[in-house]
Amino acid sequence: MNNKVLIVGTGAIGGFYGGLLAKAGANVSVVCRSDYQVVKQQGYRIESHALGGWQFMPSEVLLAAADFDGQADYLILCSKVTADIDRVALISDAVTPHTAIVLIQNGVEIEQELQQAFPDNPLISGLAFICCNRLAPAQISHLAYGKLILGNLSAGDEPKTLYLRDLFRQAGIECEFSDDIIASRWQKCVWNAPFNPLSVLSGGLATQAILQNQENFVRRVMQEVCNIANACGHPLPADIVDKHIALTRDMPPYKTSMLLDYERGQTMETEAILGNAMRAAQRQGLDCPCLQSLYGLMQLRELQISSSSQLN
Amino acid sequence: MNNKVLIVGTGAIGGFYGGLLAKAGANVSVVCRSDYQVVKQQGYRIESHALGGWQFMPSEVLLAAADFDGQADYLILCSKVTADIDRVALISDAVTPHTAIVLIQNGVEIEQELQQAFPDNPLISGLAFICCNRLAPAQISHLAYGKLILGNLSAGDEPKTLYLRDLFRQAGIECEFSDDIIASRWQKCVWNAPFNPLSVLSGGLATQAILQNQENFVRRVMQEVCNIANACGHPLPADIVDKHIALTRDMPPYKTSMLLDYERGQTMETEAILGNAMRAAQRQGLDCPCLQSLYGLMQLRELQISSSSQLN
Repeated sequence: MNNKVLIVGTGAIGGFYGGLLAKAGANVSVVCRSDYQVVKQQGYRIESHALGGWQFMPSEVLLAAADFDGQADYLILCSKVTADIDRVALISDAVTPHTAIVLIQNGVEIEQELQQAFPDNPLISGLAFICCNRLAPAQISHLAYGKLILGNLSAGDEPKTLYLRDLFRQAGIECEFSDDIIASRWQKCVWNAPFNPLSVLSGGLATQAILQNQENFVRRVMQEVCNIANACGHPLPADIVDKHIALTRDMPPYKTSMLLDYERGQTMETEAILGNAMRAAQRQGLDCPCLQSLYGLMQLRELQISSSSQLN
Repeated sequence: MNNKVLIVGTGAIGGFYGGLLAKAGANVSVVCRSDYQVVKQQGYRIESHALGGWQFMPSEVLLAAADFDGQADYLILCSKVTADIDRVALISDAVTPHTAIVLIQNGVEIEQELQQAFPDNPLISGLAFICCNRLAPAQISHLAYGKLILGNLSAGDEPKTLYLRDLFRQAGIECEFSDDIIASRWQKCVWNAPFNPLSVLSGGLATQAILQNQENFVRRVMQEVCNIANACGHPLPADIVDKHIALTRDMPPYKTSMLLDYERGQTMETEAILGNAMRAAQRQGLDCPCLQSLYGLMQLRELQISSSSQLN
């Protein structure tokens, strides 16, 4: 069976999903930098609102992919997608001919870079719908949701993907196989494109307050993203905007991932979410003025952050 | 001669222009609240980069318009235009049948409220292009620019306006009469509509940095404002966007008035500039998505400010 797993970029999300696979019987190793010492000594402590608490002791705890001894059946990349992270360099030393590369990452059109670097490896593209935090080194708190969507970019890799899906399911987490993972990414982007930047640019408002005050604008940004997905050949369900709005209304007030990054002083996924969407729009000759506004503003915000941190 | 002047809402701008009129020989009184005690005792000290320094001792220093003894030939209102300032209530006790009401204020479509309250008074609408600060109570520093544009909303009031223009000119400041002051307001809004909100939403970038990084977006917002002015029957010069861009490029890095208000924790003129422009667009059936984005974001920003100040 395919069950040697290497998690790279192991923050809260990588630790949580890695811990699930270990629970399901897989042999899971991790590459992690910031929490290396603690993880090496005592593994991860995971507390989940839905699945209880457990200890996740990785098979190997490594500082870099090059240190991995074995041959990974699945290499799961959970890093953020930002310009300061070279995803290819991060994993290349541990990719063997039969390794399936799995992305559990945000954004749209984030697969090409890895497809080009590893054209002969199966590539599984994954989306996590989860709220989980790192409370302290190697301490992960799973607060809400948790669903994964996995899919392939090329035919023929389904068996590997379905096997991984089943491992996650065995561990007790919802996991779906998507026939069109690119459409699934656009679908998540429909939500991310307005709420992520609006939460940062508003100065920290939660989703509820944004929706209550700017529903029309949120809908308009969402519709622009639907138009891009459509133009790219991945039409989304006609009621997707209404559904996202209704779901957000029912969610508890929620801090977006961009807002969390912003509050922690970390790089935000502006390019992976807004930049890539805008570039797709431009390629298709589509005008997306509201998305352009948010993208332009986030670029200014990032410029301001980098110029003020240079002053310090 | 018409030369009894009452300045209401006397901050740095009102103090500066009042000081100029006093220099030109007018009898100038002021209504001011925050600096009342200091002004009453020693008047204003004005230091101008272009006109040197002088002391401005108002004829009367008042806490409210109702305390004014005389009959004002010109009542000059220099307050900000925000929801928490009732401009009609601020001046009504000092408006006599022959008083010309002069607005030296930001924004578009800000005259109607006063026209409706005082339908029989001459209304002079004025725009200040100035950079001046209050350094300490009753201490005004005039740093750059200073030009005034004055105009009427109805015919027949030109003589009063031209007389006031000449007083300002005698005092050494550039002052123009505009045949279409509404177009002049839109023209100023072409600059304010992008740069004011972008400076706040970016987290404090000066005009130079905004322009260097988002010129296309700035141009697009400017063009939307031109389209509104056009639809409202006040077409702007065809090269207005290019001219504003070129002027901004030549300006020293500049903090907008909204950014200064924001940094001081004061109410911003979001409604007077963006809200009124958007309402005019809607009235004309015009789609202005970039302006709508900036307006929506500023509304969220203000919501965040008010909700966090309620927490304190």
